[in-house]
Amino acid sequence: MLGKVVVVGVGLIGGSFALALKQAGAARHIVGMGRSQEALARALELGIVDSITDSPEEAMAGADLVLLAAPVAQTGPILKQLLPYLDIGTVITDAGSTKSDVVASAREALGDKAKQFVPAHPIAGRESNGPDAALAGLYQGKKTIITPLPENAAGDVGLVAAAWRLCGAIIHTLTPEEHDRVFAAVSHLPHLLAFGLVDDIAKKPHADQLFQYAASGFRDFTRIAGSSPEMWRDISLANRDALLTELDAYLAQLTVLRGHLAARDGAGLELIYTNAQRARRAWSEAIETAEPAPPKNQEPE
Amino acid sequence: MLGKVVVVGVGLIGGSFALALKQAGAARHIVGMGRSQEALARALELGIVDSITDSPEEAMAGADLVLLAAPVAQTGPILKQLLPYLDIGTVITDAGSTKSDVVASAREALGDKAKQFVPAHPIAGRESNGPDAALAGLYQGKKTIITPLPENAAGDVGLVAAAWRLCGAIIHTLTPEEHDRVFAAVSHLPHLLAFGLVDDIAKKPHADQLFQYAASGFRDFTRIAGSSPEMWRDISLANRDALLTELDAYLAQLTVLRGHLAARDGAGLELIYTNAQRARRAWSEAIETAEPAPPKNQEPE
Repeated sequence: MLGKVVVVGVGLIGGSFALALKQAGAARHIVGMGRSQEALARALELGIVDSITDSPEEAMAGADLVLLAAPVAQTGPILKQLLPYLDIGTVITDAGSTKSDVVASAREALGDKAKQFVPAHPIAGRESNGPDAALAGLYQGKKTIITPLPENAAGDVGLVAAAWRLCGAIIHTLTPEEHDRVFAAVSHLPHLLAFGLVDDIAKKPHADQLFQYAASGFRDFTRIAGSSPEMWRDISLANRDALLTELDAYLAQLTVLRGHLAARDGAGLELIYTNAQRARRAWSEAIETAEPAPPKNQEPE
Repeated sequence: MLGKVVVVGVGLIGGSFALALKQAGAARHIVGMGRSQEALARALELGIVDSITDSPEEAMAGADLVLLAAPVAQTGPILKQLLPYLDIGTVITDAGSTKSDVVASAREALGDKAKQFVPAHPIAGRESNGPDAALAGLYQGKKTIITPLPENAAGDVGLVAAAWRLCGAIIHTLTPEEHDRVFAAVSHLPHLLAFGLVDDIAKKPHADQLFQYAASGFRDFTRIAGSSPEMWRDISLANRDALLTELDAYLAQLTVLRGHLAARDGAGLELIYTNAQRARRAWSEAIETAEPAPPKNQEPE
């Protein structure tokens, strides 16, 4: 049982964390903070948080756990704002989609108090945003990846893991670098590719005709291009190096495919398509066994 | 009301066409033909067709309409097999995902009888294949594109359109070249890109770790990589020129995105992401207004 929990950013991610803790009866009092007064008022109205404040001093007094659920680029500024009021017993965590940059921001903002910061990333989300999109069950059966710092106390890491477990999440541990390399490949690159394809089509002179005949394959392939441009700009920049590595590997792959196509090398194309189909089916079967069916409109962060 | 209909290939596409005509009470007798005796026997057992034969002579005698629902690369060989038994009153159509190559094969195989061939492409499908996957409602509310030949009689084009309308489809007309240009962009390129990404990831030394953390964004982006490698090899080769044009435009787009990322140009990335999000949302709203929700596991051909 946690005492006071502070959620900075009461939208989908922070709001769902608060709702899940409340549903588990796991927090005595949850305080909402954030940039948007409108979102805070709505979160209070919906019962997502017990109180709201724009005072970091008031929010941080006696807090056991603070979750940063704001865009990753705001990690440093928010931590600087909280630092003067950071008690020795308070643990801060985050929910950012990138980790190396968050760790760098935390070290820079918190100095030797960075040991009180336990970075984490819940792998869940939806296409909709804001307090109204928050769901108590959002993290149920989903992974939360913790990327501990060497200086984190084991008890602090345990507290963050316990809070996420109370939300229904399954805890995994990676280094920040492993985390960023993995998500560059399976999340950040696909987002960039989907945004790139839709923009490419939208700019063609016959875009209206093309969109008219786009069907369900296009719909699924480009669904993630409906995500927040600001959020994905930040993620792309925050994980720039790993994303460039994956993009370059993919460009090399497309160059191979282009070569097979230009040379009418059906066997070359089929080898790649067959390996992809086999791997996709194996993944799909493994994931369906391991995880329950996701809610509609869900997307990874 | 059609008299005798021949369906060459009694899998998902041909089987669904037959079931839809039967449900509409629109065909007196439906004959199944095809390479697989097992599929033919199963289609007969399921009541998809009224009889099966391996004799083109028997199948074609007195036929009003013949649907080719086999991989596009087989169009020429099948037409050559049917030609000796082609009555003057019989109309042949197809359901291939590419049209320029199908038209070329038909002209080569049929000579001056190519005027009896009306090319078409129903924009519907599912991930599963074979007679057991066939659904009477597969084409309901979906588009079927007819790409008539200049020498087609208006009545023959009308017969094919009427048959697809009886299946619930909405008829659109394009030239074969327009068709292939459109589907290279909105279907064939996304398939190549999805196959390419999954193969790229599957070949990495840490592929297992990557797949372990792939979530719903990856699932949707790569769903079409679960499609038949042979079918997509054939489509890629059949629509090679238009697909190369689209692939080159996309490679240029990725080079621009790579430049923005390498230069940490957040504004440049955001401009592309924002335009893509706007276009994707506008498309999604337009398509949801125009078409009913698709059945699960549906995919375009």
